[in-house]
Amino acid sequence: MSAPNDWWQTSCRLPNEQTRQAAQARQDELTKPRGALGRLEALAIRLASLQDSATPTVDRTWIAVFAGDHGVVAEGVSAYPQAVTGEMLRNFVRGGAAISVLARQLGATLEVIDLGTVTPLQLPGVQHLKLGAGTANFTHEPAMTPAQCQQALAAGRASVARALAANTQLYIGGEMGIGNTTAASALACVLLELPPQGLSGPGTGLDMQGVQHKAQVIERALTLHQAHCRDVLETLRRLGGFELAALAGAYLACAQHGVPALVDGFICSVAALCAVQLNPTCRPWLIFAHRSAELGHQAVLSRLAAEPLLDLDLRLGEGSGAALAVPLLRQACALHNGMATFAEAAVSERPR
Amino acid sequence: MSAPNDWWQTSCRLPNEQTRQAAQARQDELTKPRGALGRLEALAIRLASLQDSATPTVDRTWIAVFAGDHGVVAEGVSAYPQAVTGEMLRNFVRGGAAISVLARQLGATLEVIDLGTVTPLQLPGVQHLKLGAGTANFTHEPAMTPAQCQQALAAGRASVARALAANTQLYIGGEMGIGNTTAASALACVLLELPPQGLSGPGTGLDMQGVQHKAQVIERALTLHQAHCRDVLETLRRLGGFELAALAGAYLACAQHGVPALVDGFICSVAALCAVQLNPTCRPWLIFAHRSAELGHQAVLSRLAAEPLLDLDLRLGEGSGAALAVPLLRQACALHNGMATFAEAAVSERPR
Repeated sequence: MSAPNDWWQTSCRLPNEQTRQAAQARQDELTKPRGALGRLEALAIRLASLQDSATPTVDRTWIAVFAGDHGVVAEGVSAYPQAVTGEMLRNFVRGGAAISVLARQLGATLEVIDLGTVTPLQLPGVQHLKLGAGTANFTHEPAMTPAQCQQALAAGRASVARALAANTQLYIGGEMGIGNTTAASALACVLLELPPQGLSGPGTGLDMQGVQHKAQVIERALTLHQAHCRDVLETLRRLGGFELAALAGAYLACAQHGVPALVDGFICSVAALCAVQLNPTCRPWLIFAHRSAELGHQAVLSRLAAEPLLDLDLRLGEGSGAALAVPLLRQACALHNGMATFAEAAVSERPR
Repeated sequence: MSAPNDWWQTSCRLPNEQTRQAAQARQDELTKPRGALGRLEALAIRLASLQDSATPTVDRTWIAVFAGDHGVVAEGVSAYPQAVTGEMLRNFVRGGAAISVLARQLGATLEVIDLGTVTPLQLPGVQHLKLGAGTANFTHEPAMTPAQCQQALAAGRASVARALAANTQLYIGGEMGIGNTTAASALACVLLELPPQGLSGPGTGLDMQGVQHKAQVIERALTLHQAHCRDVLETLRRLGGFELAALAGAYLACAQHGVPALVDGFICSVAALCAVQLNPTCRPWLIFAHRSAELGHQAVLSRLAAEPLLDLDLRLGEGSGAALAVPLLRQACALHNGMATFAEAAVSERPR
């Protein structure tokens, strides 16, 4: 399926090493003991090198929520009815969802992209891409056709192109899709080479029996597909979902165009893992926002050597956990840019 | 020293239980799986019950930084010269310190209170209370006279009175004082009944040898004072510091007047432990912002059954870690107040 000149294989930008060193030197001159701002120092230095700027800022934030339905819901893997995917799309654009509230508070742009729901919808303010009536049930056949998978990846790239046109300084991808933790877990099993038991969690709220059933459903899908998962793209096509592929495409496009991406929870992290395995040069552009309550997230984070900023038992999705971490990035930048140096403030340094 | 009618022994306000239950019921109706916003749900519910409001908000934030010098610095317990206490006071009001930058970004009021530095200062914008030329060296004598300790507690209460006059919705206390981790560790040893080794850390940046020396200095102070530490107030007077007492007074006044207080790192948490041991009814009003990198913080948090919001390896003080957590409180409130319910948004609930 993959040709050598597929767009996502193009090398990503390199963070600027000189700017990184200058930012490190500045942090060491600010009026505080060295290292006293802990992880915020590394965060500011990293943002400086990514943005190639002595004064990094993430004021202009873009949030794209990608939604899609999942054929595997027919196997009884979700606590909520499938109609919720479409109902939540309306809630996003009307302003009542968690991500809507957070986007308003951050002054961020929120775009909502429907990649394909079971019942076709036409909602004002939603971009309906109609890749299909949800994915196929991957316990019987691949979730996506090759064309659908390519279109979903391209939908992520197109979102980043719009963000770039708006001079975005920080990109957040979110997701909505009843059943999508099942797809993400199945995908993670192949990408991490781990069995479903350790990667299948309650999602929106399954009980223990429900989680066991979900792991069995994933086990069946793996039996059908695993031998055919000859590369990452084929794995994504067979076991992923529209929004998972779109997120992977968005992360890759961010990295190619030099925009830091703030990664949300379990599902977004699995998409990030796909992106990194498709093109490892994207890794420096991915900042991990939080450690989710969903079982399996830690395994994905560990493989990515990611140390998230927050740990608040979140398990909502929508990009909400990433939105919650934006103020920390802004504060890290404000401290880096706004604090006085020892010399400027005439404060004594420690004796050497 | 303590009379039965000392002001800090007056009972604190009670959080409103009915408002708490109503807030819990609202959280369960918002368009998300129950519990999916994790610790932010509990935070919003708690703020609602503390503020006795269906729509809690922490827009009006007051930050008071209490500074003072410490006689124990003569024992060589700090990596920085003592002049830094005064130099940083100027940096706070000129806007170059971390807390200055964060206060600006939050739109918070910042007041700076000098309780007593070794060299008396007169700086525009700083309140100079002149309780003494720093505390006495507690390896030789009690750190404070009874009058100084009472004045420092009252200085905290007076700060909260000013915050109340400005209709403050959230109070943050910060501290500055070269040598104050030594005082805080000594105080924690008595309050927690633990030896100095597990509670003495690098502070602003001592090396391993420096930390060992610091623990030995504390050991000597404990040998001198421990038998006389018959109550918490006397312990605070003998081993604490001006800013530690002021913070304890501020937390108690917040709780008596019904203002939630966001507690910063190690030193503030030791002051909070004093406050709780002086008057346990203040505990519900204390919200713990972050887990500091300073050795000993975890032991203090555990005794207070406190689970902080952030864990970012911070060890700066000034109230900076608390300021960094303010956006999480604001976002928790915004989500609680602004999200749609399942009924309002016509989103399907999960089948029962």
